[in-house]
Amino acid sequence: MIKIIPIRGIPEVKYGDDVGEIIINACRREGIELQDNDIIVVSQVIVSKAEGNVVNLDDIIVSKHAEQLAALTGKDPRHVEVILRSSRKIVKVKGGVIITETKHGLVCANAGVDLSNVGEGKAALLPEDPDKSARQIRNRIRDLTGLDVAVIICDTHGRPFRRGTINIAIGCSGLEPLWDRRGEKDLYGRELRSKVTCVADELASAAELVIGQADEGTPAAVIRGYRYERGEKPAREIIRPEEEDMFR
Amino acid sequence: MIKIIPIRGIPEVKYGDDVGEIIINACRREGIELQDNDIIVVSQVIVSKAEGNVVNLDDIIVSKHAEQLAALTGKDPRHVEVILRSSRKIVKVKGGVIITETKHGLVCANAGVDLSNVGEGKAALLPEDPDKSARQIRNRIRDLTGLDVAVIICDTHGRPFRRGTINIAIGCSGLEPLWDRRGEKDLYGRELRSKVTCVADELASAAELVIGQADEGTPAAVIRGYRYERGEKPAREIIRPEEEDMFR
Repeated sequence: MIKIIPIRGIPEVKYGDDVGEIIINACRREGIELQDNDIIVVSQVIVSKAEGNVVNLDDIIVSKHAEQLAALTGKDPRHVEVILRSSRKIVKVKGGVIITETKHGLVCANAGVDLSNVGEGKAALLPEDPDKSARQIRNRIRDLTGLDVAVIICDTHGRPFRRGTINIAIGCSGLEPLWDRRGEKDLYGRELRSKVTCVADELASAAELVIGQADEGTPAAVIRGYRYERGEKPAREIIRPEEEDMFR
Repeated sequence: MIKIIPIRGIPEVKYGDDVGEIIINACRREGIELQDNDIIVVSQVIVSKAEGNVVNLDDIIVSKHAEQLAALTGKDPRHVEVILRSSRKIVKVKGGVIITETKHGLVCANAGVDLSNVGEGKAALLPEDPDKSARQIRNRIRDLTGLDVAVIICDTHGRPFRRGTINIAIGCSGLEPLWDRRGEKDLYGRELRSKVTCVADELASAAELVIGQADEGTPAAVIRGYRYERGEKPAREIIRPEEEDMFR
Protein backbone atom coordinates (compact mmCIF):
# COMPACT_ATOMS: atom_id res chain seq x y z
CA MET A 1 0.00 0.00 0.00
CA ILE A 2 1.09 3.50 -0.82
CA LYS A 3 0.14 6.50 1.30
CA ILE A 4 -0.07 10.09 0.15
CA ILE A 5 0.12 12.41 3.13
CA PRO A 6 -0.49 16.16 2.77
CA ILE A 7 2.00 18.43 4.51
CA ARG A 8 -0.34 21.11 5.80
CA GLY A 9 0.33 24.26 7.75
CA ILE A 10 3.28 25.53 5.75
CA PRO A 11 3.42 29.31 6.28
CA GLU A 12 3.84 31.67 3.36
CA VAL A 13 7.30 31.19 1.95
CA LYS A 14 9.54 34.23 1.43
CA TYR A 15 12.80 34.93 -0.34
CA GLY A 16 15.66 33.31 1.50
CA ASP A 17 13.54 30.78 3.36
CA ASP A 18 14.92 27.30 3.89
CA VAL A 19 12.40 24.98 2.22
CA GLY A 20 13.96 21.81 3.65
CA GLU A 21 13.67 23.14 7.18
CA ILE A 22 10.15 24.47 6.60
CA ILE A 23 9.05 21.01 5.45
CA ILE A 24 10.66 19.31 8.44
CA ASN A 25 9.02 21.75 10.85
CA ALA A 26 5.62 21.39 9.20
CA CYS A 27 5.89 17.58 9.36
CA ARG A 28 6.72 17.78 13.08
CA ARG A 29 3.77 20.06 13.77
CA GLU A 30 1.46 17.81 11.77
CA GLY A 31 2.69 14.68 13.50
CA ILE A 32 4.16 13.22 10.30
CA GLU A 33 7.17 11.13 11.19
CA LEU A 34 9.33 11.08 8.12
CA GLN A 35 11.06 7.82 7.21
CA ASP A 36 13.91 6.71 5.00
CA ASN A 37 12.70 6.23 1.41
CA ASP A 38 9.78 8.62 1.77
CA ILE A 39 9.31 10.77 -1.30
CA ILE A 40 8.71 14.47 -0.62
CA VAL A 41 6.87 16.21 -3.44
CA VAL A 42 7.11 19.99 -3.33
CA SER A 43 5.19 22.46 -5.47
CA GLN A 44 7.54 24.63 -7.53
CA VAL A 45 5.84 27.81 -6.39
CA ILE A 46 7.28 27.71 -2.86
CA VAL A 47 10.72 26.84 -4.23
CA SER A 48 10.56 29.80 -6.60
CA LYS A 49 9.51 32.13 -3.83
CA ALA A 50 12.30 30.90 -1.52
CA GLU A 51 14.83 31.29 -4.31
CA GLY A 52 13.60 34.78 -5.14
CA ASN A 53 12.32 33.90 -8.59
CA VAL A 54 9.48 36.38 -8.33
CA VAL A 55 9.36 39.61 -10.32
CA ASN A 56 7.35 42.80 -9.92
CA LEU A 57 5.54 43.31 -13.20
CA ASP A 58 5.87 47.10 -12.82
CA ASP A 59 9.65 46.77 -13.01
CA ILE A 60 9.53 44.99 -16.36
CA ILE A 61 10.57 46.91 -19.46
CA VAL A 62 8.47 45.52 -22.29
CA SER A 63 10.13 44.81 -25.62
CA LYS A 64 8.54 45.39 -29.02
CA HIS A 65 8.21 41.64 -29.53
CA ALA A 66 6.41 41.16 -26.22
CA GLU A 67 4.15 44.10 -27.04
CA GLN A 68 3.09 42.46 -30.32
CA LEU A 69 2.62 39.02 -28.80
CA ALA A 70 0.55 40.55 -26.01
CA ALA A 71 -1.71 42.25 -28.54
CA LEU A 72 -2.08 38.96 -30.39
CA THR A 73 -2.93 36.92 -27.30
CA GLY A 74 -4.70 39.43 -25.08
CA LYS A 75 -2.18 38.93 -22.31
CA ASP A 76 -0.53 41.52 -20.08
CA PRO A 77 2.53 42.74 -22.06
CA ARG A 78 4.67 42.57 -18.92
CA HIS A 79 3.65 38.95 -18.40
CA VAL A 80 4.55 38.19 -22.01
CA GLU A 81 7.93 39.87 -21.57
CA VAL A 82 8.70 37.63 -18.58
CA ILE A 83 7.55 34.59 -20.56
CA LEU A 84 9.88 35.48 -23.44
CA ARG A 85 12.83 36.05 -21.12
CA SER A 86 12.22 32.63 -19.55
CA SER A 87 12.12 30.90 -22.94
CA ARG A 88 14.59 29.82 -25.54
CA LYS A 89 11.98 29.25 -28.23
CA ILE A 90 8.33 29.88 -29.00
CA VAL A 91 6.73 26.56 -29.92
CA LYS A 92 3.16 27.61 -30.67
CA VAL A 93 0.79 30.55 -30.28
CA LYS A 94 -2.95 30.06 -30.65
CA GLY A 95 -5.82 32.04 -29.18
CA GLY A 96 -4.69 33.34 -25.81
CA VAL A 97 -2.14 30.59 -25.30
CA ILE A 98 1.63 30.85 -25.71
CA ILE A 99 3.53 27.56 -25.64
CA THR A 100 7.28 27.94 -25.35
CA GLU A 101 10.33 25.89 -24.65
CA THR A 102 11.71 27.17 -21.35
CA LYS A 103 15.41 27.62 -20.69
CA HIS A 104 15.27 24.20 -19.02
CA GLY A 105 13.78 22.66 -22.18
CA LEU A 106 10.28 22.14 -20.78
CA VAL A 107 7.54 22.66 -23.37
CA CYS A 108 4.67 24.36 -21.56
CA ALA A 109 2.23 27.24 -21.52
CA ASN A 110 3.59 30.65 -20.54
CA ALA A 111 7.05 29.19 -19.85
CA GLY A 112 5.61 28.26 -16.47
CA VAL A 113 5.42 31.93 -15.47
CA ASP A 114 2.49 32.13 -13.09
CA LEU A 115 0.42 35.08 -11.91
CA SER A 116 -1.56 32.97 -9.42
CA ASN A 117 -0.64 32.45 -5.78
CA VAL A 118 2.08 35.06 -5.83
CA GLY A 119 0.30 38.35 -5.06
CA GLU A 120 -1.12 41.15 -7.20
CA GLY A 121 1.29 42.67 -9.70
CA LYS A 122 3.78 39.86 -9.37
CA ALA A 123 4.81 36.85 -11.42
CA ALA A 124 6.51 33.69 -10.24
CA LEU A 125 9.04 32.13 -12.60
CA LEU A 126 10.04 28.49 -12.48
CA PRO A 127 13.08 27.73 -10.33
CA GLU A 128 16.33 28.30 -12.26
CA ASP A 129 17.46 24.69 -11.89
CA PRO A 130 14.70 22.55 -10.34
CA ASP A 131 16.93 19.46 -10.14
CA LYS A 132 19.44 21.44 -8.10
CA SER A 133 16.61 22.76 -5.90
CA ALA A 134 15.44 19.18 -5.29
CA ARG A 135 18.99 18.11 -4.43
CA GLN A 136 19.39 20.99 -1.98
CA ILE A 137 16.11 20.22 -0.20
CA ARG A 138 17.04 16.55 -0.04
CA ASN A 139 20.49 17.31 1.39
CA ARG A 140 19.02 19.74 3.88
CA ILE A 141 16.53 17.13 5.10
CA ARG A 142 19.38 14.64 5.47
CA ASP A 143 21.42 17.17 7.44
CA LEU A 144 18.52 17.99 9.75
CA THR A 145 17.16 14.49 10.32
CA GLY A 146 19.68 11.94 9.07
CA LEU A 147 16.97 10.56 6.78
CA ASP A 148 17.46 9.58 3.18
CA VAL A 149 14.39 10.73 1.28
CA ALA A 150 13.81 11.46 -2.40
CA VAL A 151 12.55 14.87 -3.46
CA ILE A 152 10.43 15.86 -6.46
CA ILE A 153 9.67 19.45 -7.47
CA CYS A 154 6.33 19.48 -9.27
CA ASP A 155 4.38 21.82 -11.48
CA THR A 156 0.95 21.82 -13.08
CA HIS A 157 1.02 21.50 -16.87
CA GLY A 158 -1.44 21.27 -19.70
CA ARG A 159 -0.76 18.85 -22.53
CA PRO A 160 -1.75 18.20 -26.12
CA PHE A 161 -4.77 16.05 -26.95
CA ARG A 162 -6.27 16.09 -23.47
CA ARG A 163 -8.14 18.67 -21.45
CA GLY A 164 -7.18 19.69 -17.97
CA THR A 165 -3.80 20.00 -16.34
CA ILE A 166 -1.87 17.36 -14.47
CA ASN A 167 1.10 17.58 -12.17
CA ILE A 168 4.50 16.64 -13.54
CA ALA A 169 8.04 16.46 -12.13
CA ILE A 170 10.30 19.35 -13.15
CA GLY A 171 13.03 18.49 -10.67
CA CYS A 172 14.03 15.44 -8.69
CA SER A 173 16.75 13.98 -6.54
CA GLY A 174 17.31 10.51 -5.11
CA LEU A 175 15.17 8.46 -7.47
CA GLU A 176 15.34 7.39 -11.08
CA PRO A 177 12.68 9.50 -12.82
CA LEU A 178 12.27 6.95 -15.62
CA TRP A 179 11.77 3.27 -14.84
CA ASP A 180 13.22 1.35 -17.73
CA ARG A 181 11.68 -2.12 -18.00
CA ARG A 182 12.85 -2.96 -21.48
CA GLY A 183 14.05 -6.55 -21.54
CA GLU A 184 11.61 -7.63 -18.85
CA LYS A 185 9.07 -10.28 -19.78
CA ASP A 186 5.29 -9.97 -19.79
CA LEU A 187 2.86 -12.46 -18.23
CA TYR A 188 3.31 -14.78 -21.21
CA GLY A 189 7.09 -14.59 -21.35
CA ARG A 190 7.02 -12.11 -24.24
CA GLU A 191 9.58 -9.35 -23.97
CA LEU A 192 8.12 -5.95 -23.16
CA ARG A 193 9.03 -3.95 -26.21
CA SER A 194 9.13 -0.37 -25.12
CA LYS A 195 8.20 -0.07 -21.52
CA VAL A 196 9.71 2.98 -19.92
CA THR A 197 7.45 4.42 -17.24
CA CYS A 198 7.85 8.00 -16.08
CA VAL A 199 7.43 7.29 -12.39
CA ALA A 200 8.48 10.82 -11.40
CA ASP A 201 5.51 12.29 -13.29
CA GLU A 202 3.15 9.67 -11.87
CA LEU A 203 4.37 10.47 -8.36
CA ALA A 204 3.86 14.19 -9.03
CA SER A 205 0.32 13.53 -10.23
CA ALA A 206 -0.41 11.33 -7.22
CA ALA A 207 0.82 14.09 -4.91
CA GLU A 208 -1.49 16.66 -6.49
CA LEU A 209 -4.44 14.64 -5.21
CA VAL A 210 -3.60 16.20 -1.83
CA ILE A 211 -1.64 19.27 -2.91
CA GLY A 212 -4.20 20.58 -5.35
CA GLN A 213 -7.21 19.90 -3.23
CA ALA A 214 -6.36 22.01 -0.21
CA ASP A 215 -7.85 25.49 -0.29
CA GLU A 216 -5.53 26.66 2.44
CA GLY A 217 -2.57 25.95 0.17
CA THR A 218 -0.90 22.66 0.95
CA PRO A 219 2.25 22.95 -1.16
CA ALA A 220 3.88 19.62 -0.36
CA ALA A 221 3.15 15.96 0.28
CA VAL A 222 4.84 12.80 1.46
CA ILE A 223 4.47 9.62 -0.59
CA ARG A 224 5.25 6.55 1.45
CA GLY A 225 5.46 2.90 0.49
CA TYR A 226 6.49 3.23 -3.13
CA ARG A 227 9.54 1.12 -3.83
CA TYR A 228 11.47 3.26 -6.25
CA GLU A 229 14.82 2.78 -7.87
CA ARG A 230 17.39 4.99 -6.21
CA GLY A 231 19.44 7.11 -8.53
CA GLU A 232 20.82 10.50 -9.26
CA LYS A 233 19.41 11.17 -12.72
CA PRO A 234 17.73 14.57 -12.95
CA ALA A 235 14.16 15.24 -14.03
CA ARG A 236 15.79 16.99 -16.98
CA GLU A 237 16.21 13.45 -18.38
CA ILE A 238 12.45 13.24 -18.82
CA ILE A 239 12.48 16.01 -21.40
CA ARG A 240 12.31 14.48 -24.85
CA PRO A 241 14.89 16.04 -27.13
CA GLU A 242 13.37 17.85 -30.09
CA GLU A 243 14.87 15.46 -32.61
CA GLU A 244 13.12 12.50 -30.90
CA ASP A 245 9.83 14.37 -30.62
CA MET A 246 6.97 13.69 -33.00
CA PHE A 247 5.07 16.88 -32.23
CA ARG A 248 7.69 19.62 -32.57
CA MET B 1 -4.40 10.99 3.68
CA ILE B 2 -4.97 9.01 0.52
CA LYS B 3 -4.26 5.30 0.27
CA ILE B 4 -3.49 3.37 -2.88
CA ILE B 5 -4.14 -0.31 -2.32
CA PRO B 6 -3.15 -2.92 -4.92
CA ILE B 7 -5.77 -5.56 -5.72
CA ARG B 8 -3.55 -8.60 -6.05
CA GLY B 9 -4.35 -12.18 -6.88
CA ILE B 10 -6.67 -11.55 -9.81
CA PRO B 11 -6.60 -14.70 -11.96
CA GLU B 12 -6.16 -14.53 -15.72
CA VAL B 13 -9.27 -12.94 -17.16
CA LYS B 14 -11.06 -14.67 -20.05
CA TYR B 15 -13.77 -13.74 -22.50
CA GLY B 16 -17.11 -13.49 -20.74
CA ASP B 17 -15.67 -13.02 -17.26
CA ASP B 18 -17.42 -10.64 -14.89
CA VAL B 19 -14.79 -8.03 -14.00
CA GLY B 20 -16.88 -6.49 -11.21
CA GLU B 21 -17.28 -9.84 -9.51
CA ILE B 22 -13.63 -10.74 -10.04
CA ILE B 23 -12.60 -7.50 -8.32
CA ILE B 24 -14.96 -8.08 -5.39
CA ASN B 25 -13.69 -11.61 -4.94
CA ALA B 26 -10.06 -10.54 -5.13
CA CYS B 27 -10.69 -7.80 -2.56
CA ARG B 28 -12.29 -10.35 -0.21
CA ARG B 29 -9.39 -12.76 -0.59
CA GLU B 30 -6.89 -9.95 -0.02
CA GLY B 31 -8.73 -8.67 3.04
CA ILE B 32 -9.56 -5.33 1.38
CA GLU B 33 -12.88 -4.11 2.74
CA LEU B 34 -14.31 -1.85 0.08
CA GLN B 35 -16.06 1.32 1.21
CA ASP B 36 -18.43 3.86 -0.26
CA ASN B 37 -16.51 6.50 -2.25
CA ASP B 38 -13.54 4.24 -2.94
CA ILE B 39 -12.22 4.62 -6.45
CA ILE B 40 -11.48 1.37 -8.27
CA VAL B 41 -8.91 1.78 -11.03
CA VAL B 42 -8.84 -1.10 -13.51
CA SER B 43 -6.30 -1.68 -16.25
CA GLN B 44 -7.95 -1.74 -19.66
CA VAL B 45 -6.28 -5.01 -20.60
CA ILE B 46 -8.47 -7.15 -18.31
CA VAL B 47 -11.58 -5.30 -19.47
CA SER B 48 -10.65 -5.95 -23.09
CA LYS B 49 -10.05 -9.62 -22.41
CA ALA B 50 -13.37 -9.99 -20.57
CA GLU B 51 -15.18 -8.22 -23.39
CA GLY B 52 -13.51 -10.36 -26.02
CA ASN B 53 -11.57 -7.54 -27.62
CA VAL B 54 -8.66 -9.80 -28.45
CA VAL B 55 -7.83 -10.91 -31.98
CA ASN B 56 -5.71 -13.72 -33.36
CA LEU B 57 -3.17 -12.09 -35.64
CA ASP B 58 -3.25 -15.14 -37.96
CA ASP B 59 -6.92 -14.45 -38.72
CA ILE B 60 -6.20 -10.91 -39.91
CA ILE B 61 -6.36 -10.21 -43.64
CA VAL B 62 -3.81 -7.48 -44.28
CA SER B 63 -4.75 -4.60 -46.56
CA LYS B 64 -2.41 -2.94 -49.01
CA HIS B 65 -2.27 0.19 -46.83
CA ALA B 66 -1.32 -1.80 -43.74
CA GLU B 67 1.33 -3.64 -45.77
CA GLN B 68 2.92 -0.36 -46.80
CA LEU B 69 2.76 1.17 -43.35
CA ALA B 70 4.28 -2.00 -41.90
CA ALA B 71 7.18 -1.79 -44.34
CA LEU B 72 7.68 1.86 -43.39
CA THR B 73 7.65 1.27 -39.64
CA GLY B 74 9.10 -2.23 -39.33
CA LYS B 75 5.97 -3.46 -37.57
CA ASP B 76 4.09 -6.74 -38.05
CA PRO B 77 1.67 -6.06 -40.96
CA ARG B 78 -1.13 -7.83 -39.07
CA HIS B 79 -0.55 -5.57 -36.07
CA VAL B 80 -0.70 -2.54 -38.36
CA GLU B 81 -3.93 -3.79 -39.91
CA VAL B 82 -5.53 -4.03 -36.46
CA ILE B 83 -4.22 -0.55 -35.61
CA LEU B 84 -5.77 0.89 -38.77
CA ARG B 85 -9.10 -0.82 -38.14
CA SER B 86 -9.16 0.66 -34.63
CA SER B 87 -8.44 4.18 -35.88
CA ARG B 88 -10.35 6.92 -37.58
CA LYS B 89 -7.28 8.89 -38.53
CA ILE B 90 -3.50 8.61 -38.71
CA VAL B 91 -2.03 11.56 -36.81
CA LYS B 92 1.70 10.96 -37.26
CA VAL B 93 4.15 8.31 -38.40
CA LYS B 94 7.82 8.58 -37.53
CA GLY B 95 10.46 5.90 -37.12
CA GLY B 96 8.73 2.80 -35.83
CA VAL B 97 5.89 4.73 -34.21
CA ILE B 98 2.35 5.13 -35.51
CA ILE B 99 0.21 7.71 -33.71
CA THR B 100 -3.47 7.55 -34.58
CA GLU B 101 -6.75 8.88 -33.39
CA THR B 102 -8.73 5.87 -32.19
CA LYS B 103 -12.41 5.41 -32.83
CA HIS B 104 -12.95 6.85 -29.34
CA GLY B 105 -10.93 9.94 -30.26
CA LEU B 106 -7.89 9.12 -28.14
CA VAL B 107 -4.61 10.20 -29.72
CA CYS B 108 -2.08 7.50 -28.92
CA ALA B 109 0.53 5.12 -30.25
CA ASN B 110 -0.73 2.03 -32.11
CA ALA B 111 -4.36 2.97 -31.41
CA GLY B 112 -3.78 1.31 -28.04
CA VAL B 113 -3.52 -2.11 -29.72
CA ASP B 114 -1.19 -4.09 -27.50
CA LEU B 115 0.81 -7.25 -28.16
CA SER B 116 2.01 -7.50 -24.55
CA ASN B 117 0.28 -9.44 -21.79
CA VAL B 118 -2.13 -11.12 -24.15
CA GLY B 119 -0.30 -14.21 -25.38
CA GLU B 120 1.79 -15.02 -28.46
CA GLY B 121 0.12 -14.30 -31.79
CA LYS B 122 -2.61 -12.20 -30.23
CA ALA B 123 -3.41 -8.52 -29.94
CA ALA B 124 -5.59 -6.79 -27.38
CA LEU B 125 -7.65 -3.86 -28.60
CA LEU B 126 -8.96 -1.14 -26.34
CA PRO B 127 -12.46 -1.71 -24.97
CA GLU B 128 -15.14 -0.60 -27.46
CA ASP B 129 -16.61 1.94 -25.05
CA PRO B 130 -14.46 2.28 -21.91
CA ASP B 131 -16.94 4.65 -20.21
CA LYS B 132 -19.65 2.03 -20.60
CA SER B 133 -17.28 -0.65 -19.29
CA ALA B 134 -16.59 1.52 -16.23
CA ARG B 135 -20.32 2.03 -15.67
CA GLN B 136 -21.00 -1.69 -15.91
CA ILE B 137 -18.27 -2.58 -13.43
CA ARG B 138 -19.53 0.12 -11.06
CA ASN B 139 -23.12 -1.08 -11.30
CA ARG B 140 -22.04 -4.67 -10.81
CA ILE B 141 -20.11 -3.73 -7.66
CA ARG B 142 -23.18 -1.90 -6.37
CA ASP B 143 -25.38 -4.91 -7.09
CA LEU B 144 -23.01 -7.29 -5.33
CA THR B 145 -22.11 -5.16 -2.32
CA GLY B 146 -24.51 -2.22 -2.08
CA LEU B 147 -21.48 0.08 -2.21
CA ASP B 148 -21.25 3.25 -4.26
CA VAL B 149 -17.74 3.39 -5.69
CA ALA B 150 -16.29 5.23 -8.67
CA VAL B 151 -14.53 3.28 -11.42
CA ILE B 152 -11.74 4.33 -13.75
CA ILE B 153 -10.47 2.26 -16.68
CA CYS B 154 -6.83 3.14 -17.26
CA ASP B 155 -4.24 2.69 -19.96
CA THR B 156 -0.56 3.46 -20.34
CA HIS B 157 0.19 6.21 -22.85
CA GLY B 158 3.20 8.05 -24.19
CA ARG B 159 2.96 11.78 -24.77
CA PRO B 160 4.66 14.55 -26.69
CA PHE B 161 7.60 16.45 -25.20
CA ARG B 162 8.27 14.00 -22.40
CA ARG B 163 9.87 10.57 -22.25
CA GLY B 164 8.24 7.57 -20.65
CA THR B 165 4.63 6.56 -20.42
CA ILE B 166 2.12 7.47 -17.76
CA ASN B 167 -1.27 6.04 -16.92
CA ILE B 168 -4.35 7.94 -18.04
CA ALA B 169 -8.11 7.43 -17.68
CA ILE B 170 -9.82 6.15 -20.83
CA GLY B 171 -13.12 5.39 -19.10
CA CYS B 172 -14.78 6.45 -15.88
CA SER B 173 -18.03 6.34 -13.96
CA GLY B 174 -19.19 8.02 -10.78
CA LEU B 175 -16.74 10.93 -10.65
CA GLU B 176 -16.20 14.14 -12.55
CA PRO B 177 -13.06 13.48 -14.61
CA LEU B 178 -12.26 17.18 -14.84
CA TRP B 179 -12.25 19.37 -11.74
CA ASP B 180 -13.19 22.83 -12.85
CA ARG B 181 -11.92 25.46 -10.42
CA ARG B 182 -12.37 28.51 -12.63
CA GLY B 183 -13.82 31.30 -10.55
CA GLU B 184 -12.14 30.12 -7.35
CA LYS B 185 -9.70 32.52 -5.73
CA ASP B 186 -5.99 31.99 -5.12
CA LEU B 187 -4.19 32.57 -1.81
CA TYR B 188 -4.17 36.32 -2.50
CA GLY B 189 -7.77 36.61 -3.56
CA ARG B 190 -6.87 36.65 -7.25
CA GLU B 191 -9.18 34.64 -9.45
CA LEU B 192 -7.65 31.43 -10.80
CA ARG B 193 -7.68 32.05 -14.51
CA SER B 194 -7.75 28.66 -16.12
CA LYS B 195 -7.61 25.99 -13.53
CA VAL B 196 -9.16 22.77 -14.73
CA THR B 197 -7.45 19.74 -13.27
CA CYS B 198 -7.77 16.34 -14.88
CA VAL B 199 -8.25 14.39 -11.67
CA ALA B 200 -9.18 11.19 -13.53
CA ASP B 201 -5.76 11.10 -15.20
CA GLU B 202 -4.01 11.91 -11.93
CA LEU B 203 -5.89 9.08 -10.20
CA ALA B 204 -4.94 6.72 -13.03
CA SER B 205 -1.27 7.71 -12.68
CA ALA B 206 -1.43 7.29 -8.91
CA ALA B 207 -2.90 3.80 -9.35
CA GLU B 208 -0.09 2.75 -11.66
CA LEU B 209 2.32 3.13 -8.76
CA VAL B 210 0.90 -0.18 -7.55
CA ILE B 211 -0.52 -1.59 -10.80
CA GLY B 212 2.64 -1.17 -12.83
CA GLN B 213 5.02 -2.36 -10.21
CA ALA B 214 3.72 -5.85 -9.62
CA ASP B 215 5.50 -8.51 -11.67
CA GLU B 216 2.71 -10.97 -11.02
CA GLY B 217 0.31 -8.66 -12.79
CA THR B 218 -1.80 -6.60 -10.44
CA PRO B 219 -4.36 -5.14 -12.85
CA ALA B 220 -6.40 -3.06 -10.42
CA ALA B 221 -6.14 -0.82 -7.38
CA VAL B 222 -8.32 0.90 -4.82
CA ILE B 223 -7.78 4.59 -4.11
CA ARG B 224 -9.26 5.61 -0.78
CA GLY B 225 -9.58 8.98 0.90
CA TYR B 226 -9.73 11.21 -2.15
CA ARG B 227 -12.71 13.52 -1.94
CA TYR B 228 -13.86 13.67 -5.52
CA GLU B 229 -16.81 15.39 -7.09
CA ARG B 230 -19.48 12.87 -7.93
CA GLY B 231 -20.77 13.01 -11.44
CA GLU B 232 -21.66 11.08 -14.52
CA LYS B 233 -19.47 12.74 -17.13
CA PRO B 234 -17.50 10.22 -19.16
CA ALA B 235 -13.73 10.13 -19.61
CA ARG B 236 -14.50 10.91 -23.23
CA GLU B 237 -14.93 14.52 -21.99
CA ILE B 238 -11.19 14.64 -21.34
CA ILE B 239 -10.40 14.27 -25.02
CA ARG B 240 -9.60 17.69 -26.44
CA PRO B 241 -11.47 18.25 -29.69
CA GLU B 242 -9.16 18.71 -32.66
CA GLU B 243 -10.27 22.31 -33.22
CA GLU B 244 -9.20 23.23 -29.67
CA ASP B 245 -5.92 21.37 -29.96
CA MET B 246 -2.66 23.21 -30.58
CA PHE B 247 -0.73 20.16 -31.72
CA ARG B 248 -2.97 18.59 -34.34
